[in-house]
Amino acid sequence: MSSFESATAVRRRSGSQGSATYDVDLDAGWSIGGKPNGGYLLAAVANAALDAVGRPHALATSGHFLRPPSGGPAEIRVEVMKTGRTVSTARTVLWQSDKPCLDVTVTAGELPKDEPEHSGFAQPPMPPPEQCRERQQDDIPVELLDHVDVRLVPDTVPFHRAQEQRNGVEPVIRGWMRFHDGADADALALLLAVDVCPPTVFHLGRMGWAPTVELTCLLRREPAPGWLAFEARATLLAGGWFDEEATVWDSTGALVAQSRQLALVGKS
Amino acid sequence: MSSFESATAVRRRSGSQGSATYDVDLDAGWSIGGKPNGGYLLAAVANAALDAVGRPHALATSGHFLRPPSGGPAEIRVEVMKTGRTVSTARTVLWQSDKPCLDVTVTAGELPKDEPEHSGFAQPPMPPPEQCRERQQDDIPVELLDHVDVRLVPDTVPFHRAQEQRNGVEPVIRGWMRFHDGADADALALLLAVDVCPPTVFHLGRMGWAPTVELTCLLRREPAPGWLAFEARATLLAGGWFDEEATVWDSTGALVAQSRQLALVGKS
Repeated sequence: MSSFESATAVRRRSGSQGSATYDVDLDAGWSIGGKPNGGYLLAAVANAALDAVGRPHALATSGHFLRPPSGGPAEIRVEVMKTGRTVSTARTVLWQSDKPCLDVTVTAGELPKDEPEHSGFAQPPMPPPEQCRERQQDDIPVELLDHVDVRLVPDTVPFHRAQEQRNGVEPVIRGWMRFHDGADADALALLLAVDVCPPTVFHLGRMGWAPTVELTCLLRREPAPGWLAFEARATLLAGGWFDEEATVWDSTGALVAQSRQLALVGKS
Repeated sequence: MSSFESATAVRRRSGSQGSATYDVDLDAGWSIGGKPNGGYLLAAVANAALDAVGRPHALATSGHFLRPPSGGPAEIRVEVMKTGRTVSTARTVLWQSDKPCLDVTVTAGELPKDEPEHSGFAQPPMPPPEQCRERQQDDIPVELLDHVDVRLVPDTVPFHRAQEQRNGVEPVIRGWMRFHDGADADALALLLAVDVCPPTVFHLGRMGWAPTVELTCLLRREPAPGWLAFEARATLLAGGWFDEEATVWDSTGALVAQSRQLALVGKS
């Protein structure tokens, strides 16, 4: 079993048609600053939803983050809302210590294999991973990097800089990811891939842990083996709130995932 | 009461702290092809969630569409998942005829009034509403247009065209909206504004009713009075699935809402 499969494994404890409860051991090794990464949590929760509805892919996953869980045992309660011909929808809640931590709705089905009729966002030109910079610890430890190899395109790496140097800097970060253990990313891993980038608002001088409030991810195609490429971009930062949009391409250049999150800038 | 307020009005039937049930009369006048518009439904459901949590704005609303309801009485069941210092989260389900129709999670709080620290997507240059074209019935009736005045930028209006003429056409539609009764759009109305545009895949020859499977909308600022401007864009169409992203600006040019939906092309 790959490290990702192991960290997102769920065990059905009980359940009837329509609802089920799963146990999961949240792995603190997939954390940022001691809190399990949001994309990792979405993947684990979606894994339970997929099992409950018996469909292979989480086409649309929307997660509202209530409170950050810790590493350790947790419970995923799944309620199947619809079983349709094309898709099924399940509502899932991650519980820990009798508190709901993450409310996730998953619409599941099968990803198309067809060539796109239209694809309007090509992967930007990027230097190969070997010429990129490994994501480092920021102000806080990034335990996740023990499992995920994240390489950032050098001229998009955010760093502390004075206000006058930030003028005109776009809050955009591009890079690559793959697993350190050599396992290829599958569709489930795309839920992680959309959230492995440092917060793009670092470019705007807003450093620190930036808690995700809501993250919705659309999966569009099963990724081919190899590196995944990503671009993350913030469009609006106002009153401490920012959006961050991520797009992921596989090693053939196919667009495989799209996400947008609403987050708060770090308290500094 | 404006026509929008009246169509989205909810009445609390019963409830205790933590959960409540609301009655709503879905107004078939806000339909497309006889099915209440998705953005309209999101607004009505979010209205119940806001009442239940006692917060003014639906900062992040994600809706998974299970089956289209009809006009007429329906029930909204709200479960409050978290009451926090900054935000509260509620999970709501719209029921009709004992069937769940729409599963919506709302994270509510207060929209910032601060000037943006960064705003990376300015409203594109657009001719004024008077020089734009009223949205017409497409292949199917658009009852919604009795209440909502939608004007489309002429060179982005999709129309039936032969395959060879579609090459190079971007699936982008820009336009304006306001209410026919003269009421100004408030924050809740932005949930409608992100979904009043014809499907952008019409540009790609995919006509007909395009059912929304999932739609997430972020509200970013209370709109100033006056026309709202919007841009809708599809990025990927493959295997019948497409995404459509909408951005809305108010009459001062401030970015006020962002959404993305996953939808299926019409059967033709």
